[in-house]
Amino acid sequence: MPDAFAVLGRKLRLGVVGGGPGSFIGAIHRAAAQLDGRFDITAGVLSSDPARARAAAAALGFRGHGSVAEMLAAEPLDAVAIMTPNDRHFTECQAALAAGLHVVCDKPLTNTLAEASALQQQAEAAARVFCVTHAYSGYPMIRQARAMVAAGVLGALRAVQVEYLQAGMSAPVEHGALTTKLRWKLATARSGPSLVLGDIGTHAQHLACFVSGLPVESLCADLGALVPGRSVDDYGAFLLRFAGGVRGTMTVSQALAGTENAITLRVFGEHGHIEWTHARNNYLTLALQGRPVQILARGDADLLAPAKRLVRIARGHPEGFLEAFANLYRDAAEAMAARICGAAPDPLALDFPTAADGAAGLAFIEAALASRAAGGAWVSL
Amino acid sequence: MPDAFAVLGRKLRLGVVGGGPGSFIGAIHRAAAQLDGRFDITAGVLSSDPARARAAAAALGFRGHGSVAEMLAAEPLDAVAIMTPNDRHFTECQAALAAGLHVVCDKPLTNTLAEASALQQQAEAAARVFCVTHAYSGYPMIRQARAMVAAGVLGALRAVQVEYLQAGMSAPVEHGALTTKLRWKLATARSGPSLVLGDIGTHAQHLACFVSGLPVESLCADLGALVPGRSVDDYGAFLLRFAGGVRGTMTVSQALAGTENAITLRVFGEHGHIEWTHARNNYLTLALQGRPVQILARGDADLLAPAKRLVRIARGHPEGFLEAFANLYRDAAEAMAARICGAAPDPLALDFPTAADGAAGLAFIEAALASRAAGGAWVSL
Amino acid sequence: MPDAFAVLGRKLRLGVVGGGPGSFIGAIHRAAAQLDGRFDITAGVLSSDPARARAAAAALGFRGHGSVAEMLAAEPLDAVAIMTPNDRHFTECQAALAAGLHVVCDKPLTNTLAEASALQQQAEAAARVFCVTHAYSGYPMIRQARAMVAAGVLGALRAVQVEYLQAGMSAPVEHGALTTKLRWKLATARSGPSLVLGDIGTHAQHLACFVSGLPVESLCADLGALVPGRSVDDYGAFLLRFAGGVRGTMTVSQALAGTENAITLRVFGEHGHIEWTHARNNYLTLALQGRPVQILARGDADLLAPAKRLVRIARGHPEGFLEAFANLYRDAAEAMAARICGAAPDPLALDFPTAADGAAGLAFIEAALASRAAGGAWVSL
Amino acid sequence: MPDAFAVLGRKLRLGVVGGGPGSFIGAIHRAAAQLDGRFDITAGVLSSDPARARAAAAALGFRGHGSVAEMLAAEPLDAVAIMTPNDRHFTECQAALAAGLHVVCDKPLTNTLAEASALQQQAEAAARVFCVTHAYSGYPMIRQARAMVAAGVLGALRAVQVEYLQAGMSAPVEHGALTTKLRWKLATARSGPSLVLGDIGTHAQHLACFVSGLPVESLCADLGALVPGRSVDDYGAFLLRFAGGVRGTMTVSQALAGTENAITLRVFGEHGHIEWTHARNNYLTLALQGRPVQILARGDADLLAPAKRLVRIARGHPEGFLEAFANLYRDAAEAMAARICGAAPDPLALDFPTAADGAAGLAFIEAALASRAAGGAWVSL
Repeated sequence: MPDAFAVLGRKLRLGVVGGGPGSFIGAIHRAAAQLDGRFDITAGVLSSDPARARAAAAALGFRGHGSVAEMLAAEPLDAVAIMTPNDRHFTECQAALAAGLHVVCDKPLTNTLAEASALQQQAEAAARVFCVTHAYSGYPMIRQARAMVAAGVLGALRAVQVEYLQAGMSAPVEHGALTTKLRWKLATARSGPSLVLGDIGTHAQHLACFVSGLPVESLCADLGALVPGRSVDDYGAFLLRFAGGVRGTMTVSQALAGTENAITLRVFGEHGHIEWTHARNNYLTLALQGRPVQILARGDADLLAPAKRLVRIARGHPEGFLEAFANLYRDAAEAMAARICGAAPDPLALDFPTAADGAAGLAFIEAALASRAAGGAWVSL
Repeated sequence: MPDAFAVLGRKLRLGVVGGGPGSFIGAIHRAAAQLDGRFDITAGVLSSDPARARAAAAALGFRGHGSVAEMLAAEPLDAVAIMTPNDRHFTECQAALAAGLHVVCDKPLTNTLAEASALQQQAEAAARVFCVTHAYSGYPMIRQARAMVAAGVLGALRAVQVEYLQAGMSAPVEHGALTTKLRWKLATARSGPSLVLGDIGTHAQHLACFVSGLPVESLCADLGALVPGRSVDDYGAFLLRFAGGVRGTMTVSQALAGTENAITLRVFGEHGHIEWTHARNNYLTLALQGRPVQILARGDADLLAPAKRLVRIARGHPEGFLEAFANLYRDAAEAMAARICGAAPDPLALDFPTAADGAAGLAFIEAALASRAAGGAWVSL
Repeated sequence: MPDAFAVLGRKLRLGVVGGGPGSFIGAIHRAAAQLDGRFDITAGVLSSDPARARAAAAALGFRGHGSVAEMLAAEPLDAVAIMTPNDRHFTECQAALAAGLHVVCDKPLTNTLAEASALQQQAEAAARVFCVTHAYSGYPMIRQARAMVAAGVLGALRAVQVEYLQAGMSAPVEHGALTTKLRWKLATARSGPSLVLGDIGTHAQHLACFVSGLPVESLCADLGALVPGRSVDDYGAFLLRFAGGVRGTMTVSQALAGTENAITLRVFGEHGHIEWTHARNNYLTLALQGRPVQILARGDADLLAPAKRLVRIARGHPEGFLEAFANLYRDAAEAMAARICGAAPDPLALDFPTAADGAAGLAFIEAALASRAAGGAWVSL
Repeated sequence: MPDAFAVLGRKLRLGVVGGGPGSFIGAIHRAAAQLDGRFDITAGVLSSDPARARAAAAALGFRGHGSVAEMLAAEPLDAVAIMTPNDRHFTECQAALAAGLHVVCDKPLTNTLAEASALQQQAEAAARVFCVTHAYSGYPMIRQARAMVAAGVLGALRAVQVEYLQAGMSAPVEHGALTTKLRWKLATARSGPSLVLGDIGTHAQHLACFVSGLPVESLCADLGALVPGRSVDDYGAFLLRFAGGVRGTMTVSQALAGTENAITLRVFGEHGHIEWTHARNNYLTLALQGRPVQILARGDADLLAPAKRLVRIARGHPEGFLEAFANLYRDAAEAMAARICGAAPDPLALDFPTAADGAAGLAFIEAALASRAAGGAWVSL
């Protein structure tokens, strides 16, 4: 197997931006980046307050800086990982690319399609690796699903169904004491024009497109708030057309009481369908018409290559969200190493989500907003 | 408990129309009608061919007739059960009501809303019991779900999701040898204006409305065929508004390869949600926000009265489709007995689907067709 | 398909003994016997009190008698179904066989192996059909499991695991008000020498032997009571040897709080294993080593003949305990019809449990008691 | 919360022994040790061949040594983690303790009870932390189960059931090309007197005792090989008595084709039971008699403190084996830090398995061997 990282022969130096004390996603990014020994987090900007930023970094064992500009000027980095509130992604990514660095950025990539497209172009022009952490695409059984669809196991595709259901906004949280996180989430200037779509909608859209191999071409949106009096979106249901006229549906909400980060994806083809659900991430259901339903398991002997390479522990030993997230970092490291030392990357390592995927997410959001504005009409992306 | 059937003191005499040799649903109707000893099937019209009709009835042990008119003239019946192709329901129901009989009719009630409404009015004017066999509403745990929603366990409702997925039409069956059943199904003049909606769509719509207690007020439809070249509908996805502005989605298809009559219903309220799925009909999931998920089981000690009365076998002994179907017949028998002998019926026995529910199904179908005709616009029912 | 019942050309006349008002199993027997239109229940002895016996029968629509002797003398029966307390089975079965009738008897067949063997011999000598209602063996997917094992799908067998867990005796019910049923259950002179083994142990043992095709040859028992101070057995755990040295385990209890009639069977062979669990009776798990796990469903196109013939409703429409119970009655009817009219029975109809199986159950119980008496030593059957 | 690690103010220096290239468990140990930033792996002995040992360590980024003695002499370590073949644990642990170091050792602790007890005494005399990696006890929902049992949620305990089923030895692997790992596993002088019990049996026994809070007091064993001609044990089934007379069963096997590291534990009490299964490690089933079954989830708001403190990621984001393993390392680090700096450790951090647990595992194995030698008699531990 080609492996540019081995050719490089050293860990990549990573600077982190955001994810300070109390952040859920910051701890995930840092653990994921380091799990496979391909990144050293050497520096970070963990707060917009310089003093707190330095203290937080020191507590985590790396150098702290008071600003991104300061870090970029001072540190010999290979890459930057950005996990700040959504409205800061654009300028921070711009700066990192301008400094010649590779980038890992949390989703949504930006708050507008124009910004996302600009980053995509900048990254391509600079020939820099740009990974957007749609982490669910890092699960081995999602890679297996994508590979099976691509291999034609299901035959011609007919329909795609995806849902992503959460409960965190099911209470009228805006009327209570606001956490720091909730404060910027509720400010659409910061979190973006549709909270639910920025938070989880682009995850669902990316997952459906990633596995089916098909972009969304048009949609009809029912977008709004389930909680009475709420001014941000907490619910979106969609009728979809993917490339080739494949039908689809998507439902996302953060206000469905009693759910728990429940993602389910089904892809239907002429011969059968696959189904994956987050709570059972180590398994993939394959139902071929006229045959018994099959439960493929991470670790099965005959998984396809794109899945098999990501299996870390023997069958029957559950893996979880951390490993999925780390798979994106590991592959991004391979792509970065290839760029740095000119070696050919492992071709199977190139399936991580990129700025182009980030831009597709923003295109989806803007089409959804346009559909709502048009009274629920079908809108092309 | 009031029980008009006990007051009546005899079985009801039932004539069956349709469901001849080879019919799946005919055998179900007959077994369901007789399971509780409340109906005697004394006569039937099992074929449009008089000779075959009489032979088929004789083989089943009751008197056969060559036509509905003949049977109605000759037999001292209390009720008629109709399970013929959809286009015959209207005139057969009319005739039975005109003869003063109570009616059990398979779904869809008719092929037009006008006909369905006419039957509803005729039944009401004649003060006759009219049961439409939306059999899924007969499951005890569906009754539990409805009762819990009505009791406010979930708080104010926020969203309803229903899906009904089948695989029987996933192959291009219209290009092979056609069975008798498939021949009339594929003829929209007989099966109605939208095959998938007539076959299973009204089941899904009824179930969602039955459990939520809310009618559908408007919809936006994506209705058509998944199988290339197919002229009848095999797929429908819907964005919904129920009464009170409650949002919803519904997906039904007969062309999703690898599925097996998979019905799933979820109702979300401010405090939590319930989920029921056909493959686990003896259970109901209740997820209250901040509490562990609960799996209610048919036979649990503290089920609500509308569910508890339908439990036939002790907890842990599975019941199935037959018992659900029979529950409708049993309750229809109670209502018929009450009408016949003037006794008060058990009030809990009156939740079976009626001609009004049948008409609501046709209203749904016609709104779906109107939405399609309008390019996917929202249409009020 | 050969079908002796069709040759017979009439329903079989069945007399029922036991199962009076309030009995759970009586209602099941009567519904199961009649579900397929092969038996008419024409008479019964529903109580040991003659007046109540006649009233109960009348309420159910058949002739009542004050005693078995009276019924056998007065009624032109083909068969008798016995569902009385365990200690009455022996003399009632004897009488029915002596009257030349076929017999269906609930389990355990008797309270001693000697009695069970005597009935087996009497039935064989009289050439009468004798069905013991180990109803779980009537589930289509249990028949599929048995057929797959017999066909060698698993290769040479290696281990069998069975458990049957209930909760009904988890509270110290003997210290409260006793129901009629509980009164005779707690009297070992009536219910037999080991309550848990008579009630459910022989079901588990029969199921394991039925599917594996192997008799139990020796056992090591841990038999007793989980509830402090209880004088009857409510728990048994067993190490087993089946024929050919196949290892096994069995656990049964009626005092495991929170369970619900939970039966799980696994059969392991050199190539893989099967697993069936009561709560999902319509499915069977097949796990072949190195292959994805398969979930076979009742109604699948390629089930083996012994299972396929018992499928009543299309895939995805759940069947339950009633249909399993009725399958035994249907097959017993076929065997009875063959004896009555001399026609060849459908060979696939002959898998119902017989007096020999009933005797095997008693042999198991007596070996378990012997093992306990010997301090938990291994004992041969 | 007291936190001795914070008082210590630096990472612990860890030397690893074993787990060279190709080792499954070596990679797990190293990732688990470092996941929480409490250990730096600074040195290791990764092979018994000095040159290969140094090369392997260099490839992983820490100093390599040719022997344990060399490493102990050269390195300023706080602790040693041992993951060599079983027969080397004893002398390596002795050496580490003699050098004044804390120890993490894989299971089984040793190959004899005498050795295990000696290590236990040595560790206690030296006042050194000694963690045995029964990793399944690190799952948050296992901690929840233990805490609920201890809190009396189930009432007085009545029965415990545990099983651990694998398939890796279901083929006659001893007749093929042997891997390095398989070679020492098949040599009982190295792997211990009962392969299945050393590999997985002590995991199952520990889990049952850990959650129930009860030691095994006596057992009756059915121990041997399922695969014909095999000379090592691949199967063990046990009847158990825990302290207080609580009944139990345990089944472990490495030769059950089609299984996948399937661990299931049930603990029954007078009020209900709990069930945990490895494939759904993020959930715990609680079934209280007369109440709906509850599915507790990792991340639920009201988990008990011993579970809650181990939850790393929000509800609905699956965790897996790695995090469970890391939980043991994290808690061992807390205990080590407390010893090093004299601070009070977090009392909730002290539930990791110790040398005493390792010795209990060996006592179980030796009792099982004694039971077999006595023809399956009950033997006290």
